[in-house]
Amino acid sequence: MIIVIKQGVTKEQLSLFKTTLEERFHVKVNTWEGVESTVLGLIGDTTSIDEDWVNAQEVVENLRRVQEPYKKANRKFHPDNTIIELPTGQKIGDGSLCIMAGPCSVENEEQINYVAERVKAAGATFLRGGAFKPRTSPYAFQGLKAEGLDLLKGARKLTGLPIVTEIMRVSHIDMFESVDIIQVGARNMQNFELLKELGKIDKPILLKRGLSSTIDEWLMSAEYIMAGGNNKVILCERGIRTFETATRNTLDLSAVPVIKSKSHLPVIVDPSHATGKAALVETMALAAVAAGADGLMIEVHNDPKHALSDGAQSLTPDQFDTVARKVLTLHQTMKTIHQA
Amino acid sequence: MIIVIKQGVTKEQLSLFKTTLEERFHVKVNTWEGVESTVLGLIGDTTSIDEDWVNAQEVVENLRRVQEPYKKANRKFHPDNTIIELPTGQKIGDGSLCIMAGPCSVENEEQINYVAERVKAAGATFLRGGAFKPRTSPYAFQGLKAEGLDLLKGARKLTGLPIVTEIMRVSHIDMFESVDIIQVGARNMQNFELLKELGKIDKPILLKRGLSSTIDEWLMSAEYIMAGGNNKVILCERGIRTFETATRNTLDLSAVPVIKSKSHLPVIVDPSHATGKAALVETMALAAVAAGADGLMIEVHNDPKHALSDGAQSLTPDQFDTVARKVLTLHQTMKTIHQA
Amino acid sequence: MIIVIKQGVTKEQLSLFKTTLEERFHVKVNTWEGVESTVLGLIGDTTSIDEDWVNAQEVVENLRRVQEPYKKANRKFHPDNTIIELPTGQKIGDGSLCIMAGPCSVENEEQINYVAERVKAAGATFLRGGAFKPRTSPYAFQGLKAEGLDLLKGARKLTGLPIVTEIMRVSHIDMFESVDIIQVGARNMQNFELLKELGKIDKPILLKRGLSSTIDEWLMSAEYIMAGGNNKVILCERGIRTFETATRNTLDLSAVPVIKSKSHLPVIVDPSHATGKAALVETMALAAVAAGADGLMIEVHNDPKHALSDGAQSLTPDQFDTVARKVLTLHQTMKTIHQA
Amino acid sequence: MIIVIKQGVTKEQLSLFKTTLEERFHVKVNTWEGVESTVLGLIGDTTSIDEDWVNAQEVVENLRRVQEPYKKANRKFHPDNTIIELPTGQKIGDGSLCIMAGPCSVENEEQINYVAERVKAAGATFLRGGAFKPRTSPYAFQGLKAEGLDLLKGARKLTGLPIVTEIMRVSHIDMFESVDIIQVGARNMQNFELLKELGKIDKPILLKRGLSSTIDEWLMSAEYIMAGGNNKVILCERGIRTFETATRNTLDLSAVPVIKSKSHLPVIVDPSHATGKAALVETMALAAVAAGADGLMIEVHNDPKHALSDGAQSLTPDQFDTVARKVLTLHQTMKTIHQA
Repeated sequence: MIIVIKQGVTKEQLSLFKTTLEERFHVKVNTWEGVESTVLGLIGDTTSIDEDWVNAQEVVENLRRVQEPYKKANRKFHPDNTIIELPTGQKIGDGSLCIMAGPCSVENEEQINYVAERVKAAGATFLRGGAFKPRTSPYAFQGLKAEGLDLLKGARKLTGLPIVTEIMRVSHIDMFESVDIIQVGARNMQNFELLKELGKIDKPILLKRGLSSTIDEWLMSAEYIMAGGNNKVILCERGIRTFETATRNTLDLSAVPVIKSKSHLPVIVDPSHATGKAALVETMALAAVAAGADGLMIEVHNDPKHALSDGAQSLTPDQFDTVARKVLTLHQTMKTIHQA
Repeated sequence: MIIVIKQGVTKEQLSLFKTTLEERFHVKVNTWEGVESTVLGLIGDTTSIDEDWVNAQEVVENLRRVQEPYKKANRKFHPDNTIIELPTGQKIGDGSLCIMAGPCSVENEEQINYVAERVKAAGATFLRGGAFKPRTSPYAFQGLKAEGLDLLKGARKLTGLPIVTEIMRVSHIDMFESVDIIQVGARNMQNFELLKELGKIDKPILLKRGLSSTIDEWLMSAEYIMAGGNNKVILCERGIRTFETATRNTLDLSAVPVIKSKSHLPVIVDPSHATGKAALVETMALAAVAAGADGLMIEVHNDPKHALSDGAQSLTPDQFDTVARKVLTLHQTMKTIHQA
Repeated sequence: MIIVIKQGVTKEQLSLFKTTLEERFHVKVNTWEGVESTVLGLIGDTTSIDEDWVNAQEVVENLRRVQEPYKKANRKFHPDNTIIELPTGQKIGDGSLCIMAGPCSVENEEQINYVAERVKAAGATFLRGGAFKPRTSPYAFQGLKAEGLDLLKGARKLTGLPIVTEIMRVSHIDMFESVDIIQVGARNMQNFELLKELGKIDKPILLKRGLSSTIDEWLMSAEYIMAGGNNKVILCERGIRTFETATRNTLDLSAVPVIKSKSHLPVIVDPSHATGKAALVETMALAAVAAGADGLMIEVHNDPKHALSDGAQSLTPDQFDTVARKVLTLHQTMKTIHQA
Repeated sequence: MIIVIKQGVTKEQLSLFKTTLEERFHVKVNTWEGVESTVLGLIGDTTSIDEDWVNAQEVVENLRRVQEPYKKANRKFHPDNTIIELPTGQKIGDGSLCIMAGPCSVENEEQINYVAERVKAAGATFLRGGAFKPRTSPYAFQGLKAEGLDLLKGARKLTGLPIVTEIMRVSHIDMFESVDIIQVGARNMQNFELLKELGKIDKPILLKRGLSSTIDEWLMSAEYIMAGGNNKVILCERGIRTFETATRNTLDLSAVPVIKSKSHLPVIVDPSHATGKAALVETMALAAVAAGADGLMIEVHNDPKHALSDGAQSLTPDQFDTVARKVLTLHQTMKTIHQA
């Protein structure tokens, strides 16, 4: 961490400040005196230094970190890719392309079983489906809740596909015991109480990026889970909020290679929520694969026109057949292209 | 709600769609046929119509609401300003200027009592202070928790100032029983499970705007609380996330008059979190009062340089004396100016 | 165009407003009366209706367009893709992948000739290079200007590659006479005076997207050029400004399929300016090809470490060899994937 | 300027880099070696150092400026406020409140003369009016052009109010000879060719902030004008582009105190373009005055319903009477409040 000192600070003030830093944070402080400004360099573990505290000191002009504030999620300290393996054998982050597909909301047994069988046949490796739904309006359908979880388990039994579904509340963690991957939605990316509790369990967490979260904040939320002891975090880019309204959100595909350089965690892409439009899903799924994503999360509904939520962005099973075929072919090609 | 129909839709498709709308949502549907497009107008209560569902229909080009999707928070249906009155007599939204002041985090008894007495003497009407702190980093100070709540109650006893503090988890609601106003932070504005539970209690809720939430989404979150039966919602503008980095967030003061026109709920402004810089707090507090805010939330710390969180934006008690004097004088002047 | 009328408007006011609309804009006006609101539908050519004027009318609640405000750039009216062909035979938008490569700034003869030969050998189809440079700082290198244009022409003569370079001023148009494609930079996307003049010449214009321009505004700027008679517009996505700082801008790849659906104009992608980092260029170039872009614009410098501008995002000729090989292979694969 | 060196750089590489820096930029370079990283500090005039060049060097991890990149616009080097005085005696930045009022577009003699007389009577100190209009659509009214300038001069003669009007093209500078203040619109804030030419004349320039420009970029554009020798720059905040759609743009009032701390230039606020809604103009004008703005720019139209552009945000002369009275009263009060 580098701290720029204000002009006009006396030697006594500076000396006092350096002592305070060393005692408070157990770091070593080096000084470099320029003509117009003095700069301090802090050596040691600066992860736990509170930037707010430093910024508030009278003598401080500003500061910048040389090290990132995350450790466990940081590739610098863990150069190898994290590969997440489920008890049932599926792997994420090992170079394969995981495809999580299914309806936005679980609606009934027939629906979820039908969709599950269709997406499995098309090549999906996970079944996604919402039982608890975060909706902007209190008057909109909020999901089948516990019943939805049961229906997902039934579809898992039928197809063998592990299930991915969203949690919205700490007190539900027990209920999610037999879920294979627990999803944290974009709106809860900084629900720190939830993250802390998910850090205590031993189960993969799919952490969606918040609508206006920087990549560093996203990694800090992963760090929350990992700091609790659960290292099985999968990141999911699902679009950020910008001024553009032609798409529901702006899919930030550059986040994929940026995450790959900063972190060892696997990252997948959700083109359905990002674009909000079924017609754009195939194209952006292909682009995500070309950008190096470890997987995709795609909404598929037997009957998007009658879906109880997010129908506008759902593919039909037939459309998904095509998309899955194309992305899997492209994924193979990308390997060849990069190895050539 | 107005629905624009795609070109090329047949009479049969259109007729079927209209019947579906009428049966599904209990509305009356009018048709207007243009040369290039056909438009449907839905009459009746369209609040519960799911836009996603409509957008997903094959025949639909797009739609727009004529009515806002919120009802209880909507000024159209409740023209008079909501005035929130505490059991101890304080009122918010009645034309007075409420001032919530105190430290970002409660740190110890001496600190909170000293700050409480100083802000009261300066004119503050509420004591704010964080016991549970949402921090980006898992390694940063997370607040004194239950002990912090007790210290706040002690300071209330000492000064008579009602207390405002942030809740981060549904299971804490009981613990917040004797808090006067419960704050929902920006990161939890769309923590719908928390909002639902807060709708079941009878206590004022201070709902901060999310970092990237539109005003309509913010009002929908207020609607979540009100839909549960708790109408005592106070809105708090605290800056939105934009590309500008000179300030921590961009304070959207236009939100004040916009909220006033759309809703009957009181709205206050937090210049401390919005700007992130103590030097800007006074100016933006004055601007907020001129913009018609019902109150201010301002961070005050006995010793910002040693604050455990957010020191950079905290005022000293002496600085707060000046700010309070100025904003109260301005508030009086604004009444005169508007009545002249 | 649909106009929602305010509540409480009298029959006389409405009747007068309708007559005004019909006379002023030569459209037919239909009325649909709902319970809570009245809606007007305008039939005819609404392209030239001024939204500001309509919004300002006392009786108007709000309006929305059913038709897009652009005509010449609109795919609805020109279903076939525009293919731009240069006098020297190169085509853009015909299904091939055009690759525009070269240095940010032309620096000297040796440099531009060397880079030109290297990028040609690697597969580039156009030579790009800046002679006039838009720089944020008045103290930064502003380009070699007229001399830079001459050097570009020399490199064209040497390699046969047509040249693409940026114009910054109306009075330079004559000087750009023998440039093959004239580029309008992001900061000039709404320099309407420049767009108007470029509409009068018969030469392809590469129109970069503004940093905070919506896709519709971008198409309106294309419309400016086309309205003047020059239909040879190539769009170039180069990243938009968002809150994220990990990349210089946020590359909005969804813009590619969105443009393809809204317009018949070719669209290429510039991953160099979008990301600002050489290490991300290859990945995002591949993603752009997978997303269906008609071409790429990539910065290549013989010696990025000594480049006079934008070195951080430039590839070396060796790096470009690899990128060009990969994107061309992928482009072939994408055809196979889509045809399968 | 502080440069963080990559891990793994050899002593030889570092030594070579330091020599290059010293020779290329005539600065002195200090080294501070930490455990994990080495940091260089550059001493001397770093204004002209090209950040792109530095970032592109192989040994560089990243850099940050300690000094701002602008000099002439920088308060550090010019502590006193710039006061701009017109030949006719009006001053901007001297503590008075300048009010620039008038129609978005000049439409005809009767209109501009009537509005000029009304705004003067209400207290405006400048007449604003557009002769050349930047419009998103090529089919919208583009202004009366030269005739509009003549009408403005006529209204000036009638009322004595100096005139402010927008320039869109370098070749028009001669035509603007007798305009009192030349406005550069938001879309041309980084039209560097125009800025350079305006730096060569001796006339106040009103520089509007670009829709997505940071405050630092805005000051760099002021620096462009000042670098040419024209120090008479007035900044105008007019709203930035964000995700919020309730207002046309988001008025960033914090920019006023931020500019005041960073620069000595006067800054005014345009609540009309920022909000896009007449109903919000009064409130945001008052907030701007409370925030310390040196002036206001407000659209006033004799008949907003029939305005040829931007009618929705224009006040009637009667409405402006009220706004002008209120802001002038508030401006007096603010002086008292700050002096108490």
